[in-house]
Amino acid sequence: MFAGTPSRLWIDHSLKFAFGIETPLSPQTADDIYNQIATRLGEPDLLPLAILDRANVEVIATTEFALDPLHHHQSMLEQGLIGRIRTTYRPDDVTDPSRPAIVENLQQFSALTGENVSSWPGLINAHRQRRETFRRFGAIATDHGVPNAMTADLALVEKQALLDKILSGKHDATDAQLFRAQMLTEMALLSVEDGMVMQIHAGSSRNTDPLLFAERGPDLGADIPTPTDYGNGLRALLGRCGNEPNLRLLMFVLDETTYARELAPMAGYWPSLMIGPPWWFHDSPQGIRRYLDQVVETAGFYNLAGFNDDTRALLSIPARHDVWRREVCGFLARWIAEHRLSASAARDVAVHLSYQAAKDAYRIG
Amino acid sequence: MFAGTPSRLWIDHSLKFAFGIETPLSPQTADDIYNQIATRLGEPDLLPLAILDRANVEVIATTEFALDPLHHHQSMLEQGLIGRIRTTYRPDDVTDPSRPAIVENLQQFSALTGENVSSWPGLINAHRQRRETFRRFGAIATDHGVPNAMTADLALVEKQALLDKILSGKHDATDAQLFRAQMLTEMALLSVEDGMVMQIHAGSSRNTDPLLFAERGPDLGADIPTPTDYGNGLRALLGRCGNEPNLRLLMFVLDETTYARELAPMAGYWPSLMIGPPWWFHDSPQGIRRYLDQVVETAGFYNLAGFNDDTRALLSIPARHDVWRREVCGFLARWIAEHRLSASAARDVAVHLSYQAAKDAYRIG
Amino acid sequence: MFAGTPSRLWIDHSLKFAFGIETPLSPQTADDIYNQIATRLGEPDLLPLAILDRANVEVIATTEFALDPLHHHQSMLEQGLIGRIRTTYRPDDVTDPSRPAIVENLQQFSALTGENVSSWPGLINAHRQRRETFRRFGAIATDHGVPNAMTADLALVEKQALLDKILSGKHDATDAQLFRAQMLTEMALLSVEDGMVMQIHAGSSRNTDPLLFAERGPDLGADIPTPTDYGNGLRALLGRCGNEPNLRLLMFVLDETTYARELAPMAGYWPSLMIGPPWWFHDSPQGIRRYLDQVVETAGFYNLAGFNDDTRALLSIPARHDVWRREVCGFLARWIAEHRLSASAARDVAVHLSYQAAKDAYRIG
Repeated sequence: MFAGTPSRLWIDHSLKFAFGIETPLSPQTADDIYNQIATRLGEPDLLPLAILDRANVEVIATTEFALDPLHHHQSMLEQGLIGRIRTTYRPDDVTDPSRPAIVENLQQFSALTGENVSSWPGLINAHRQRRETFRRFGAIATDHGVPNAMTADLALVEKQALLDKILSGKHDATDAQLFRAQMLTEMALLSVEDGMVMQIHAGSSRNTDPLLFAERGPDLGADIPTPTDYGNGLRALLGRCGNEPNLRLLMFVLDETTYARELAPMAGYWPSLMIGPPWWFHDSPQGIRRYLDQVVETAGFYNLAGFNDDTRALLSIPARHDVWRREVCGFLARWIAEHRLSASAARDVAVHLSYQAAKDAYRIG
Repeated sequence: MFAGTPSRLWIDHSLKFAFGIETPLSPQTADDIYNQIATRLGEPDLLPLAILDRANVEVIATTEFALDPLHHHQSMLEQGLIGRIRTTYRPDDVTDPSRPAIVENLQQFSALTGENVSSWPGLINAHRQRRETFRRFGAIATDHGVPNAMTADLALVEKQALLDKILSGKHDATDAQLFRAQMLTEMALLSVEDGMVMQIHAGSSRNTDPLLFAERGPDLGADIPTPTDYGNGLRALLGRCGNEPNLRLLMFVLDETTYARELAPMAGYWPSLMIGPPWWFHDSPQGIRRYLDQVVETAGFYNLAGFNDDTRALLSIPARHDVWRREVCGFLARWIAEHRLSASAARDVAVHLSYQAAKDAYRIG
Repeated sequence: MFAGTPSRLWIDHSLKFAFGIETPLSPQTADDIYNQIATRLGEPDLLPLAILDRANVEVIATTEFALDPLHHHQSMLEQGLIGRIRTTYRPDDVTDPSRPAIVENLQQFSALTGENVSSWPGLINAHRQRRETFRRFGAIATDHGVPNAMTADLALVEKQALLDKILSGKHDATDAQLFRAQMLTEMALLSVEDGMVMQIHAGSSRNTDPLLFAERGPDLGADIPTPTDYGNGLRALLGRCGNEPNLRLLMFVLDETTYARELAPMAGYWPSLMIGPPWWFHDSPQGIRRYLDQVVETAGFYNLAGFNDDTRALLSIPARHDVWRREVCGFLARWIAEHRLSASAARDVAVHLSYQAAKDAYRIG
């Protein structure tokens, strides 16, 4: 959908990495390159696991909804692939009441877990149980796709009343927002219990083209970032458990104005909070520069989560990591040249942000 | 009013371009430079059309309100100047109910067009007719100066009720906002019909100094940009006709935080939407750098509208275009040096953004 | 609390400046450096006044609340130190009704000044009197720490009703906000009278960690910047007295998105408004670059207030000024290299922003 230059960088890199094609893609070369790709696609070194080997991918994670039966992961478990491939607990299907199927989903959630999700403690138990199941399939993290970063910390009686309303199907947009906000805090509390790393992907307005939505359904594009308020948004969650040593909260950000204003000071203060890598539109050379420029001085290098990406384009993964490494090194080199960092300290930071930071952030190995 | 450095760049460039003066302006040289200018002003090569010739200006546009009789353009039509000089349809006088004269203006609009503007279809017909008249005087575009980017898409019965309220003079600020929002969508629908390029200049809070306002009246300064929400703001308009091939929407932006967060993703998605050049306070070297940095990776080079400016200072036009060309070339040169773009691709983009992009954006020639 | 790199720059600079230690601080060198510091601390050249001498500090200001008895300043007056050391009038203790002790504080304010602060004119007289007292202890400025930049300009009857409510202790958060907003305008009006420079430090959300607050009390950390609206916020104050030649208003900013969008245009327009130096999280190399990049072209160099900082870490003061001077010179050098500024003009600006600008901004000497 996007005509931006990063995708061009990734295409060139992928053509070379996967197919050995170094001819630049152009109207003149397109047919020939197409044929070369078509010829090569059936070869065994282009099977997914072979590509992961070639790209030195140690761990790759999928995300599944709470109701997902994890059949593929069961099969991968039997093949001994779990560990290198891991699921991630993304319970948006049972935490977001703006979904038309929310009541049905909550009923399935009850059936799947045997918990009575019409009581708040039962609902939390159902999550507790699914998180445990997901961990058997390698899950080390949860993921939460939310329109904004609002969190809440209600009294039990309020939570139960809210749940009753959702289950009766009589909730409005304000109730849905409050339920999502409360569920983020509940997920953080469960992370305090079980140590799963909590990822929040906030701030996208989804499905903004009614024509696309009518033709193809939800979550297929026209997603536009919105201003996001992390300071007030996360206040309830962090006030409740932000100092817990077992909590690790990774923020993925689309509103770059919050880097220096909110997230870097918050990551500097809260031991649980780390800033995730530049995400989506900002997973690009200029995007990474703006990110480092705005977060490092206040948050420090060691409150960053290193780099990962959430692409579905398998072949672009090496290119994306390569861009990150180059930009980190470029940033550090400028600081060395300005005598703001010694070459040896910069080398340590470069190694850390290129590789170890992501493993540390996700508590791997 | 502003003591910024861009104006200094423009002054130096203009003194040289128009008067051949290369002495830097300073307290010591001011009187002498004043005398040189005064002596030269009467010479024929400083008449407006001679300046346009010397600056190689192919097309220059004025903007007139919907009620403007276009007398000057009638005269220019008779002189064969229309085409090089073009009017632009800027109907703020009949679309903005916050103007004290709005009821009177709508009555004049009715008298001028013979349409019954007290019915919604009549009001739209009056616009349709004036747009056609403006096109006879070279208009290829409309322009809309609005405090924010809010749009609406109401049902006819709601639109008629709103119009009734405006015409009765009993509207409040909320009604005025809704009317402006609806009129933007109506203008987009008329652009779908007639192909006129739609320009939105949004996000300035006007007349913020009551002393200046009391002494000199409206629209004479103290205009301060405000945070502007393009994502939610344009949603109604784009949802209604954003996929129409005949719609071309150019956004002029004062809130730079929206470049990367909202406008670049939106320009990447919507075929009708282009990002206009850096505007007003941002029509400057650093402003252009921030603009390119934040829009290009997501929107691509070819969703930008090239460069124009809305200065009233005729002699600063060559300087402004020169700054744009230099900054574009500087930006591309950095990408070449970083091996992110080939020299030949960069040359194509440089030529495009320096010249052809603006003609393409306005569908000229 | 913050692991950012600026603090590292300041530590290295301070160790060298104050103790002559050039060994980089590291786990290996920490004990030895600790011992060197402990040995040196008792020596006379490390007494505060000796440090000010060594750092060539001409003037340093403290800030005291309106109710402060200024005992230390009385003692400094007797020692002839006032002038080099100056108090600053920071009346948050009697202007912020969100403080639990506000009613008691206002009663003390009455007792201290002999004014009847239950009438609005009496309240203003009490401020007028305290400002005069502070000036006897060198005060040339007032300072206002506010969560946002909202100002108000109410009619006297409304102001009195608001004051009655505050004094009855029945005010809510909205009343407290309105009182703070009105008091900013009152302080500006008193500055018009007495010429004291008005500093506004706006936009921090204080005490966001309830655990820290419970353990240690207010104003000890977890302060996170918030989006701040200067355009609408300052409108009432500036509309009332923004054109007064005697008013000087310095804005300290945590929301960098307002630099180019609001504050630079406002500083360009309003003769009373200057942009203060990069503050708090932004008092750093990258922070200063973003500041200069975004304010200079529109506001000009001469609407900036030069540099000061509000650190409590005495030994970091030389480092902070050094960073400012280096960044200003780096910024100007890039403009010289790009032929945007002559070397001699840049030298004037460098000298001005490094030294004279701060004295001019505070009307010293």
